[in-house]
This record gives sequence, C-alpha cells and structure tokens, in this order.
Amino acid sequence: MPEDSMDKPNIVTCTAPVNIAVVKYWGKRDEELILPINSSLSVTLHQDQLKTTTTIATSRSFQEDRIWLNGKEEDINHPRLQSCLREIRRLARKRRNDDDPSLDSTGLSQRVHICSVNNFPTAAGLASSAAGFACLVYTLARVFGVEGELSAIARQGSGSACRSMYGGFVQWIMGEKEDGKDSLAQQVEAETHWPELRILVLVASAERKPVGSTSGMQTSVKTSSLLKHRADSVVPGRMADMIEAVQKKDFAAFAELTMKDSNQFHATCLDTYPPIFYLNRVSQQIINVVHRYNRHYGETRLAYTFDAGPNAVIFMLKQHVPEFVQVVQHFFPPETNGGQFIKGLPVNSAALSEELKQDIGLEPMPKGISYIISTKAGPGPCVVTDPTQHLLGSDGFPIGSV
Amino acid sequence: MPEDSMDKPNIVTCTAPVNIAVVKYWGKRDEELILPINSSLSVTLHQDQLKTTTTIATSRSFQEDRIWLNGKEEDINHPRLQSCLREIRRLARKRRNDDDPSLDSTGLSQRVHICSVNNFPTAAGLASSAAGFACLVYTLARVFGVEGELSAIARQGSGSACRSMYGGFVQWIMGEKEDGKDSLAQQVEAETHWPELRILVLVASAERKPVGSTSGMQTSVKTSSLLKHRADSVVPGRMADMIEAVQKKDFAAFAELTMKDSNQFHATCLDTYPPIFYLNRVSQQIINVVHRYNRHYGETRLAYTFDAGPNAVIFMLKQHVPEFVQVVQHFFPPETNGGQFIKGLPVNSAALSEELKQDIGLEPMPKGISYIISTKAGPGPCVVTDPTQHLLGSDGFPIGSV
Repeated sequence: MPEDSMDKPNIVTCTAPVNIAVVKYWGKRDEELILPINSSLSVTLHQDQLKTTTTIATSRSFQEDRIWLNGKEEDINHPRLQSCLREIRRLARKRRNDDDPSLDSTGLSQRVHICSVNNFPTAAGLASSAAGFACLVYTLARVFGVEGELSAIARQGSGSACRSMYGGFVQWIMGEKEDGKDSLAQQVEAETHWPELRILVLVASAERKPVGSTSGMQTSVKTSSLLKHRADSVVPGRMADMIEAVQKKDFAAFAELTMKDSNQFHATCLDTYPPIFYLNRVSQQIINVVHRYNRHYGETRLAYTFDAGPNAVIFMLKQHVPEFVQVVQHFFPPETNGGQFIKGLPVNSAALSEELKQDIGLEPMPKGISYIISTKAGPGPCVVTDPTQHLLGSDGFPIGSV
Repeated sequence: MPEDSMDKPNIVTCTAPVNIAVVKYWGKRDEELILPINSSLSVTLHQDQLKTTTTIATSRSFQEDRIWLNGKEEDINHPRLQSCLREIRRLARKRRNDDDPSLDSTGLSQRVHICSVNNFPTAAGLASSAAGFACLVYTLARVFGVEGELSAIARQGSGSACRSMYGGFVQWIMGEKEDGKDSLAQQVEAETHWPELRILVLVASAERKPVGSTSGMQTSVKTSSLLKHRADSVVPGRMADMIEAVQKKDFAAFAELTMKDSNQFHATCLDTYPPIFYLNRVSQQIINVVHRYNRHYGETRLAYTFDAGPNAVIFMLKQHVPEFVQVVQHFFPPETNGGQFIKGLPVNSAALSEELKQDIGLEPMPKGISYIISTKAGPGPCVVTDPTQHLLGSDGFPIGSV
C-alpha cells in the first residue's frame, strides 16, 4: 500500500433520528452508567424531517481526537462523549482479540475527527442529544468495525439515545443488573407497522430556558415521592398497555396512554422540590385544545406529549391532519410576515367548522407556536453511501471551515 | 307572653373565618357525607380581614325556610344546605328528647330566614364556602340551642368548612367510620400560639374561571393513581411532621412542608385525566420568586400555598413582611391608578436591595397581582352581641332590601 494512501483518512458518514417518548424516562438509578428508574417507550421520528448527520474520520496523521458540533469545535473531553469513545474502542479491541486476530487493527490506535450537524435548528429545543449520541455511536461502530448491540453504548452518551438506535416503536427496557448490560433498547414494531400514524411537532416560542433534564431528573429522584411511586407501580403496567396498543394499532388507547403519561411526568416535575415547570401557558392551551377537540368528536383523535421543554408533539391518524392544522392556525395565529408555518410532509388544506371553533371556545394565543413540523415514524440510523455527503474533507477537517 | 312578641323573630348573628390548608384536602371517599381520602391541616385566617357574617331569624310567622347570600336570594333546596339544616334540627330534637324534655321546643318547628355576607369580594376567588358553611352551622346551632361538636355538620356543607369551626391551627382528621362520625376537625394550637406568623394573600387577576373543586376532585379520585398514593402513603407522615412543626413553631419545617404539599396537590391535578391546571403563569412566577428569595438568604423565610384557584397565600415571620411586600411590588408592578395595593394589617415601608432583585432575576409581570391582604392566624366563629350588626331586620327580612 503506497504511503500516501495510508495517511488518507478513512471516512464514514451516518445519520440518526430523533425519538419522542410516549412512556417517559425521568430519573436515573445510576448517574455514571445512565441506568433509568423505569422502562420507557418511544416513536422514532422520520429522518426526512429531523436527523443528525455525523461524519467520522480516522487517520494515523491525526494528533488527537477532536469534535465539531454544528460548525463549532467542542471539548472532546466531555465525560459522556469519552464514555462512548472508550466503550466502542473496547468492543473493537475485544472483537479483534476474541474473534479474529487477523483483523486489521491499525485503525484502533488512530485518533478520530468527528463532525456532526442537525437538519433542524438547535434553538427549536428538540431533544438533539438523543439523535446526536445515537449517530455518534452508530458511526463510531462502523469506523471501528464493531457490530451487534450498540444501544447500551448510546445509552451511556444520553439515556434516550439508546432508543434512537432503532426505527419505528422502541422500548428501552430498564434492566436489573448493576453493570447495566441488560438496560437496552429493543424494537417493538418497525416504522412500516402503522403507516396511518402522523406526528406534528408544534415548535413553541420558548419564553425562557427551562431547567436541564439531567439536573432536573436528579432533583426529582431526590425529592419527589410521586416519582418513585410512578416508576415502581405505574410504569410497568403502562408499558405493557402501550406495547399492546401499538401492536394492535389502537389509536384511542395509544393516545390516552400517551397523554396520561406526559401529564404524569410533568406532575412529578411539579412534585419536585423546588418544583420544575416545563408546561407554560402555550402548552396548557394546546392541552385544552386537544381535549376539547376530542370531546367535540366524541372520540380520541389527537394526543399530545411534552418533554422537558415547551414544544408539543401531537399524534393523530393521517386523515385528521389537515383539519388539525387549521385548528392550530386558528388558536395560535402565526406571525403573518414569518416563514412557512408548516414544514415537512405536505398537508392538504381543509375547512374549519364554526361548531368546532365554538366547542373549543378558547381565546386565540397569537405567536404561541412558531411553526409546525409534519412528520411520521421513521427508520433507525443509516449509513450514507454518497461520499459527497461527508462533513469532513479528505484532509479530515470540516468542509467549509477555514 | 303577649301575642305580638311571639311573632317577633328570634335573631342571632355570628361570624366565621376563612381557612387556608397547608396539608391539602383533595378527594372524597363519600360524596354524600363529604368524607375525605386523607386528613388535612389548615391555618384559620383572622376575621378582621376575611370573614362571613350570618344572621338567622326564626319566627312562627315565617312560611318557609329562605336564604339570602351577599344580597341575593338563593335556592334553599341546595342539597348541602339542606344537609346542614336537617342535621342541626335533628340534634336539637335529640337534645330535647334525651336531655331536657322541658326545653322550649317552639323554635324547632319554626322556619328560618338566613342572611349571609362576606367582608371580601366573591370575585377575589377566596374559598368562601368554608367560611359560609361554618358560619351557617355555628349560627343555626345557636338559634336551635345545640351545643358540642359541630364540625361534622359543617363538613356536610363543605368539606373544608369543618376546619373553619376552630381558630388557629386546625386538623381535619379523616376518620374511618362509614357514617362519618369520626371525620372531625380538631384544634392543634390556638391562634395565640405563634404570634410572629404572618399571612399575605396575593389576590391574582384570574384569566379564566378554573374547574370547580367538587368536580375537579371527583375526576382526580377516578383517574389519578398519584392521588391515591399521596392520600395513602404521603399524607399520614406529612400530617405528623406538620403538627410537630406547628407545635415547635419551626418556620423552616412548616414552610417546606407547606410548599411541598401545595406542589403535590397541583401535581395530582395535573395527573388527573383530563388534566386540571390551577397554577397559571402568575402562580409560576410567584413560586419562582419565593424559591429565589429563600435561596438569596440561604434560609426558608417564605412559603407559598395555592388552592383550586389563582390566588397565592404566603406565610412568613412578621419581620420579613415589609421587604417581601417590596419584592411583590417590584416583580408584579400594580396598576398605578388602582386602589390601595395592601389591605389589612399595616405594613411598614422597606428598602429593596439591588442584590436581592438581581438574585431573583425575573422579568416583572405587570398587573399579575391585583392587591395583597395582610393578615395572621385568628379565632374561630364568634357570636355578634351588638344587635345593630344583624343582617335581618325585626321583620325577619334583609335590612336594606326592598
């Protein structure tokens, strides 16, 4: 092999999705290994709308591990980043030693350059760490030739990242072992299972930065007796019910469990001392709109769920999307001179009846919602084969950087 | 006795206080008898600031029972009103039969005219039903010559009314019996026990009428698993701790339990399906101000509590009132052309340091609070001996009415 080709970086690019929990994860029993106090279940969102792209290059010419996130170099020594790097390298070494001593091992001692971007604004407050760590771990695994179960490694980057390792409907089984080996994500159903299901992300204009989820859940675990009860006594049954609802594609059951679980999560935040508020007046109005919409139709056609931030995620069946978008536009009139209000999957126009408006009967809240992302369930992480999509150039540095 | 004096009504006037729970009552195990799913504890507010006055007249010339509330005749057939009337008459009959058959019984068959007013606006959203039913039962008892335990009767008018039958610090023991005979209020300490304790009611400008507490707690009992856990497993310990904090006059312990219990009550409302919101953006800001104020001083000097409405009740020791009022005026700038901002017990002026303002560091919320009522713990129901205070004239009809 000519020397110049040995210096040329080995480059891999992958993408990974965002996921939204419908049975929420809140609280760790082990901070270091990121082991949760309860199991959780999520829907993987489609990467056409929301994804992280990560390129990793290895080269013997690199002096040190480095990382660039959304165009800015960040500290590679971040403990959770280091956990993922260490675990992947450990698995790679193990594989070489155990399985196939003949495997090329030059890459193992090489340093990595990591470059990662999201196709959505960070300011949108969408949980980007799950997609980010899932993508990091998936890409690292490709680079170092590691195969098999990777969700336990992604989990050590960010708990919910383990669920972004699969497409469709994914459970994170809390596990029992102290070393966390059984705290893994598992696909419940693939993304093709429920094609009628649609997901709208209502991006709210945040009034102020909320408490971060890491410190928030620490305080909750320490101070909320309701959280302990939830984890021990409520979630196990809810996981079983939710899996059944997903498998049967029972929208009403899925929707009610989703709303109840979101509310219970926020209830445990309020039972935290000092209390944590993630639901603001816009969230409360969205919740009221959804319940009144459902009451108007006498059936559960919409479900909301809120994470540790102001955005709402709304589930519905495909046929109900156009009218619901009208409802949102009516009760949250957008800025008239802003950009497009609906992004993502196209939405047909629809009429909004006076009866429905009156039955909802709330005062419109102008500018409460910045825009809507229309999406659906999607696949897990993918390798990008087109080399023009790499974020690192053949020199191993971010393309476009000085 | 000349005939005209027999036609002249027998008139009694009494007053009764409002109370504010620091361990909350939320949820009934018996709707008819109003038996709660957990015990609760409250502070009786001073009647100089907040009270109900009720005059009851009996006369053999009255054709039927009638009631006027705040100047307007209301339906006497309201079931809870009927419960109180029936129970007092039953006790009066029992007393006559058992104890003293010679007692004058003419009054027993006579009809009553009831007239009741509050010395605070109903629109302020202060729980007036507790003071109202306590006053009704206390006055009826005087009219019919009934003595002894009356809280179990007041309880059948409005659950929390039983706690307004005593002054100071009062517990409502949930009881175990099916007939509710052991579900009673009991004084923990008299109003003179903790003279340094001050209470400010921050009257919020409500944005919309919230869900009523009767239907709210019904839905919570049916749907919230966290409420059941709270009632069964959290409240018993909290009652013991709260009684101890009150007896020791340990403000920090009292304050923290008060805040935690308010938060947990609102958490169970959020865990209700559909969820119930009583805390709005003003409440959230008050909560944040209180925690940041306490953090600034490194000690718990303030406690908030919120019932099923937007008003906040703040507890503090006397020496901290003047500065706290400045804090409220700074972070909730009142309308400049409105009436007085502070009502009730006089409050000295004070300075507000830049450090404190900065440590609280929140954006002021204009007009979030309409006014403050400054008060303290006070006595239970009283008989008004001055006949000029009667609300019914010698004809048995409201004074001033046409």
